[in-house]
Amino acid sequence: MSAKGPLSGVKVLDLTAVVVGPSCTLTLAEQGADVVKLEPPEGDLLRKLGGPAPSPDMSPKFIHFNRGKRSIAVDLKSAAGLAVLARLVDQADVLVTNMRSGALERLGITWEALSARNPRLVFCIIAGFGKRGRYHDSPAYDTIVQGASGFAAALGRVLGEPRFAPFVLCDHITGIIASQAITAALYARERSGEGQAIEVPMFESMAHFVLTEHMFRRTFDPEGPTGDPRVMNPDAKPIPTSDGYIAVSANTDAQAFAFFDAIGRPELRDDPRFNSVGARFRNVDAYFKLRAEALSTRSTAEWAAEFRRREIPAMPYNTIEGLLEDPHLWEAGFLRRENHPTEGPMIGLGRPVTFSAAGPDELPLAPRLGADARSVLADAGYTEAEIAALIGGAVLAPPG
Amino acid sequence: MSAKGPLSGVKVLDLTAVVVGPSCTLTLAEQGADVVKLEPPEGDLLRKLGGPAPSPDMSPKFIHFNRGKRSIAVDLKSAAGLAVLARLVDQADVLVTNMRSGALERLGITWEALSARNPRLVFCIIAGFGKRGRYHDSPAYDTIVQGASGFAAALGRVLGEPRFAPFVLCDHITGIIASQAITAALYARERSGEGQAIEVPMFESMAHFVLTEHMFRRTFDPEGPTGDPRVMNPDAKPIPTSDGYIAVSANTDAQAFAFFDAIGRPELRDDPRFNSVGARFRNVDAYFKLRAEALSTRSTAEWAAEFRRREIPAMPYNTIEGLLEDPHLWEAGFLRRENHPTEGPMIGLGRPVTFSAAGPDELPLAPRLGADARSVLADAGYTEAEIAALIGGAVLAPPG
Repeated sequence: MSAKGPLSGVKVLDLTAVVVGPSCTLTLAEQGADVVKLEPPEGDLLRKLGGPAPSPDMSPKFIHFNRGKRSIAVDLKSAAGLAVLARLVDQADVLVTNMRSGALERLGITWEALSARNPRLVFCIIAGFGKRGRYHDSPAYDTIVQGASGFAAALGRVLGEPRFAPFVLCDHITGIIASQAITAALYARERSGEGQAIEVPMFESMAHFVLTEHMFRRTFDPEGPTGDPRVMNPDAKPIPTSDGYIAVSANTDAQAFAFFDAIGRPELRDDPRFNSVGARFRNVDAYFKLRAEALSTRSTAEWAAEFRRREIPAMPYNTIEGLLEDPHLWEAGFLRRENHPTEGPMIGLGRPVTFSAAGPDELPLAPRLGADARSVLADAGYTEAEIAALIGGAVLAPPG
Repeated sequence: MSAKGPLSGVKVLDLTAVVVGPSCTLTLAEQGADVVKLEPPEGDLLRKLGGPAPSPDMSPKFIHFNRGKRSIAVDLKSAAGLAVLARLVDQADVLVTNMRSGALERLGITWEALSARNPRLVFCIIAGFGKRGRYHDSPAYDTIVQGASGFAAALGRVLGEPRFAPFVLCDHITGIIASQAITAALYARERSGEGQAIEVPMFESMAHFVLTEHMFRRTFDPEGPTGDPRVMNPDAKPIPTSDGYIAVSANTDAQAFAFFDAIGRPELRDDPRFNSVGARFRNVDAYFKLRAEALSTRSTAEWAAEFRRREIPAMPYNTIEGLLEDPHLWEAGFLRRENHPTEGPMIGLGRPVTFSAAGPDELPLAPRLGADARSVLADAGYTEAEIAALIGGAVLAPPG
């Protein structure tokens, strides 16, 4: 295997934008795949919508979701642009898109058409809603799926009114799910010799996420309650200390009893409300409240040391700024100081997962719009003269 | 390829418990892998901790996370139990565990030992914290990682105090990430002939999830703000109607202008606060507030029809109970009435992803503890006499 990672040599044609697709192809790129990001002439919307950066089209969110990819900007509204796409499809192992199926059909990007050209292609559509149900081809954005999938409702159980998680959460999770499905189809192709079409619907994927956890008693009983009360407890939050917060998880008897000792309440181990896993589960409100009340007198660092000494699972709570200074993340090579060719010094993110057969994780940083037009076209077999004719026409002139 | 899915024929030895590992191996099972869940004699903790069911050890959360798997209960504290594990490793393509590395070393479950027996093995450790940093081998539970990774902090930005999402969120997401990493290593093995060791750390994985979205301007500027204000807006929530809530996402000019028409405020398309994507982004507080105020006069169904007519992306908000009645999810075969051999009639969850080369998604329901001891041992080459000698000793007698 190449030193670059388990997906080295896999060629991915990436017709995705914003978060759901780029989250998928980031995982593939981190593992060595050659991801060609085919953008419209105006670029992925996320270039501008993901926060301020030195350049107006290199938002930080775009930068983090698109490292390790090459960019080519192609006008698919022109016949010449569609011809470029067809040549790239011939070379590709994977084509992934989050365009709606109506738009894909107008462009001729269908499994029937593409598999006729390249039967080994893995063709993945990330959809809002799966084609087997009535919402098929309805437009979906992250918050629409947070609302429809019950994620907002789960937050609402705790907070008193439904609300969205402060993440592009359903896009982000569905993208990871799509990266797995694509990888599975690549595995199957090694054995069968054939590609296939995959559909990854956001709504069904997130309904799966929510209902595995929260169908609860209604699984068996049409009148039974939904929602796991242990994680929906209003006191399920980091616990205030004298100078911050800490997260502590004392689940087994050994951990809970050590916790009672640590807070100077050893008698609680004999309290029938708290003397077993089952008892603490039944009295989770009282147990969480007791924990919350116990920790306000000492600092986060003192409690962290105390819990470590007693082998009680705990970690200080991090703000987002604090996370960026976490020594473990720098030691692990996950956080790294890098220098973007146009954006200058920046903090980059490494690959969280390690593979023993992979070399070091050294992905290039995210590309400017169209920056790799020449190398992508050359790899697809275009001659210098053909490339010169395309650039500035159906293919956007690369900067510089 | 088998009709069962892209991972048909892959044998997974599953030494995981609760959510992070079962979420990983559920994905593999849904795609056709033969997942053998090796449980301790007392069973996966989630059997009892995941809510009430007809049987005391078949909690709904356990049932949903463990369908399509076989169960064998083995006492790994005995030499005979460890010998069973070794025989199963010889047959396996994948071993995945979320036990801490100290415990694994005491049991001799290390990459060095196992790859000597089976060099084609893919060996995946799902860890709390990666081995390259100082927190390595610290205990991790979901809420500890929610607190440490900045997820609780992101919620805190919106809510005024840090809190956990009401899901076993970091376990659940990291499990999906692990399923992709394992699948990638299987793909690489088809090409190299060799297995490898994978480490999937929860903390780094979730720091990646949080920071791709929220490193924001601090990516480039040590004093710059973190946190994407668009998703952290306090009004980023489903919008109340006269009888419920609706989620609507009007991002492009065409969508926003159609929305202004729908609410009877066509003049807003000329308002400099709202007349372009950039203007609405800069005035997101005012834009969200305006949307929230506009919808209280009509019902969710009326607004949904109005928005559909005007091609404005929107979907009614679902409660968890409402989600279980959603017609799309039943039509798609994702929600299904099933009959568990011991738990009786229940609602089961299908595979959200579809693969064109896979047959129908017909996974058996989750197993009772030790239910598959005989078939698992027979598949590993044990004779009837050997199986009889093991059952009731190192291998728990299966029920019935």
